[in-house]
Amino acid sequence: MNITILGGGGFLGRKLANRLAKDGTLGGTRVSSLVLFDLTAPPAPEGAAFPVTSIGGDLAELPDGVIPPGTSVVFHLAAVVSAQAEADYDLGRRVNVRGTDAVIDACRKLASPPRVVFTSSIASYGGGQNVVLNDSTKQIPGGSYGAQKAAAELFLSDASRRGFMEVVSLRLPTIIVRPGRPNKAASSFFSSIIREPLLGLQTDLPVGDDFKVWVASPRRAVEWLLHAATMDTSGMGLDRSLNPPGMSVNIGQMLAALETVRQGAGTLINRISDPALMKLVSTWPAQFDTARASGLGFSAHEPLLDVVRAFVEDDLAPTKAERGIA
Amino acid sequence: MNITILGGGGFLGRKLANRLAKDGTLGGTRVSSLVLFDLTAPPAPEGAAFPVTSIGGDLAELPDGVIPPGTSVVFHLAAVVSAQAEADYDLGRRVNVRGTDAVIDACRKLASPPRVVFTSSIASYGGGQNVVLNDSTKQIPGGSYGAQKAAAELFLSDASRRGFMEVVSLRLPTIIVRPGRPNKAASSFFSSIIREPLLGLQTDLPVGDDFKVWVASPRRAVEWLLHAATMDTSGMGLDRSLNPPGMSVNIGQMLAALETVRQGAGTLINRISDPALMKLVSTWPAQFDTARASGLGFSAHEPLLDVVRAFVEDDLAPTKAERGIA
Repeated sequence: MNITILGGGGFLGRKLANRLAKDGTLGGTRVSSLVLFDLTAPPAPEGAAFPVTSIGGDLAELPDGVIPPGTSVVFHLAAVVSAQAEADYDLGRRVNVRGTDAVIDACRKLASPPRVVFTSSIASYGGGQNVVLNDSTKQIPGGSYGAQKAAAELFLSDASRRGFMEVVSLRLPTIIVRPGRPNKAASSFFSSIIREPLLGLQTDLPVGDDFKVWVASPRRAVEWLLHAATMDTSGMGLDRSLNPPGMSVNIGQMLAALETVRQGAGTLINRISDPALMKLVSTWPAQFDTARASGLGFSAHEPLLDVVRAFVEDDLAPTKAERGIA
Repeated sequence: MNITILGGGGFLGRKLANRLAKDGTLGGTRVSSLVLFDLTAPPAPEGAAFPVTSIGGDLAELPDGVIPPGTSVVFHLAAVVSAQAEADYDLGRRVNVRGTDAVIDACRKLASPPRVVFTSSIASYGGGQNVVLNDSTKQIPGGSYGAQKAAAELFLSDASRRGFMEVVSLRLPTIIVRPGRPNKAASSFFSSIIREPLLGLQTDLPVGDDFKVWVASPRRAVEWLLHAATMDTSGMGLDRSLNPPGMSVNIGQMLAALETVRQGAGTLINRISDPALMKLVSTWPAQFDTARASGLGFSAHEPLLDVVRAFVEDDLAPTKAERGIA
């Protein structure tokens, strides 16, 4: 099985590549090769028993060889994230829309249609704090990132209907706890308020304790991606997008979990006001009915405390090393 | 008021241009100039008291001057229609998506954001014969045309939110009775079964008498476009798309109206089978709850018999002349 990860240099792409290297198989089939693609050639995972090719470039001008003949599975995780797509309209459109078109065109050239797993986002919805959404809810995005993701879902579903590929789009929740550095996603602070105090660093919190957010852990997201790559999609019909079973938590619960794992860490959090960011994240939905995804075999979420502990286990030491923290 | 009609050579664009020429005003404001744009430079309407510029070209490479400085209203009617977008994926994407991006980019350059009236389509929905849709229904298109229109709505709504324009997207019903020649829309036969017999010509009918279709007349569509160009949009929020109040009719009712207007005309209709076309049009919705559009001042539809009589009055003689029928 030949696999490509677009956005293979991102934190989720790296975790996915590491998992494939560790398992050596996907859905019971041996992995025979892996291509990693990102803006700059991503590092190969350690210990892979299969050849890994790393390629850097522009998604919208997808270089030959990124989705080579014989590719069976493409993980399309490459994106310009929310706050950046809002700040730079042209860049967001280029990567999130033209880039997705380039993926479609590369898949069209293959002799047999590959499975494509696309990471869409709950930012493709409006809704806000006080509604429960489901897979039948109309997507009315409050930002350019969400609009571009919703449009990409449409193009990929259509490409799937036409037989160019077989897509499964997952509208990922806000992922906590992201390792590494804060990024340009408007949702970055949801991870920072756990990660930074665990690193002994101060961090800003622009919303109140009762602010709710729909989240998933990196471990759970990787499990979902692997499931989407091999699941039976024959019953999905024309709607190829899913809201996987994340969980709705509020800031107070997140801070309590942090306090359980590291007593006193909460003192490193500074309450601030950021109306522009608040306006954007307030349009995002905070709760979903995920019956459809559960019915299609997507695994339920582990408790919040496990999420914080998994970050300590999986990512705290690497993040410290990356950021030069003793 | 400076106005541009993209797709100004299409039958709806021509009717709209004729109406502006006749009225000399839009929403009570004097029309000071009109630009018509299409693949080839469209003919200017007769009797206009304002200068008309006709430009031909590729929408995706929108020439300078199509949306000149000072433009207040852009009617974006240009599209590759349903059956053609299904047959030629690249062309549909180029015109329906890249073309819409080009319109957004032209509007961004203007000193003040113009009103943009975009014709989306009910083909952006799935649903089929037996459901009633409304403005909250999720768009799950069954063809590339519908997917491209739904995505264009997302991009235009986002451009509107960003302040590049102020868009109103109308998901037009199937328009009956289209004048002129049969076109490449999968919906073409809904007009042909009225138009061709009135011209004394045989025509094919690929669905049964009880097949329902959501329709609007050219006269009603022009009224809606004019209303969308000048209505107060301040209460629309992020969702800038509307299902205007068309009407649900079945084939039997259409044939009865034809028979009332021209006795014996129905004998010119040949019942045929066309499974591919049937599959596509069967995914289109046939009934809508249009409370939102009605609340925003979009006018109710006239009876079906009036639609057939208006075709005879407005378009039968010009269509005969165009097609060389005595």
